[in-house]
Amino acid sequence: MGEEKAPARDRAVRKADVLTRLEQDVDAWVSTAGADGLPYLMPLSFVWFGERLVMTTRAANPTARNVRANGRAYVSLGHTRDVVLIEAEAESVPSGELPAAVGEAFVGKFTWDVRADPAYAFLLFRPVSVRAWREVNELPERELMRDGVWLV
Amino acid sequence: MGEEKAPARDRAVRKADVLTRLEQDVDAWVSTAGADGLPYLMPLSFVWFGERLVMTTRAANPTARNVRANGRAYVSLGHTRDVVLIEAEAESVPSGELPAAVGEAFVGKFTWDVRADPAYAFLLFRPVSVRAWREVNELPERELMRDGVWLV
Repeated sequence: MGEEKAPARDRAVRKADVLTRLEQDVDAWVSTAGADGLPYLMPLSFVWFGERLVMTTRAANPTARNVRANGRAYVSLGHTRDVVLIEAEAESVPSGELPAAVGEAFVGKFTWDVRADPAYAFLLFRPVSVRAWREVNELPERELMRDGVWLV
Repeated sequence: MGEEKAPARDRAVRKADVLTRLEQDVDAWVSTAGADGLPYLMPLSFVWFGERLVMTTRAANPTARNVRANGRAYVSLGHTRDVVLIEAEAESVPSGELPAAVGEAFVGKFTWDVRADPAYAFLLFRPVSVRAWREVNELPERELMRDGVWLV
């Protein structure tokens, strides 16, 4: 952990910053675990829609397989010095079964469209815990959501 | 995935860039899985020493517990648009059993020292696979190490 560079943000400011990053960021790190109990990590692009991070990858890829195995993931937005760390319930939806509004939100953010490709699955991540901190001085009050409920 | 912004680097350049980041970066995302088969993700500071990423955390924290459970991790260095993604064999070493040279390397990079604190463990990550890419044009040739052997 580094030196303190700025005053610690209160929880309300952090929640606003998290929501801004959910709207504006492009990619996230997605940590999953396989049926064999071993970890996996991969960056995927996402759109924040309907209180979920929506991503897509090939249904045969480890991230999609792991989501189908246990329905859990950790997602982080980008940087280790501006941490947004999300524990999520995750589900994999075949491309042909995606609700139209979700698909339109995804295609509206990105230039590519795999909705008609049966090799792809969409992954929906519903946050159940959210923590955000920048430096050591922000470790207190880093918990912003618990059991799916915002604390602020 | 974004638009192409620069020519794709060849494997030799990528390996050099990876080694530079292993020397200079401060933090990494560490993805592990628990004995319950569920994923976990946390950023930790590291030093690159003896062909291993060396980190420390409380021995009771999930990352340390998970390493002890299955000896595997994925580690990523920072950014989703300059990916260095490392699959690693991992071991947890109690603070009192750390080889002196490893401990000195860690303390030499950071200002804090938990070597005498029995509540802490040191985690050693030996890369077995390394992939590096920036944008879509770098997806070919992203594999730089396989089965613990550099391909270039």
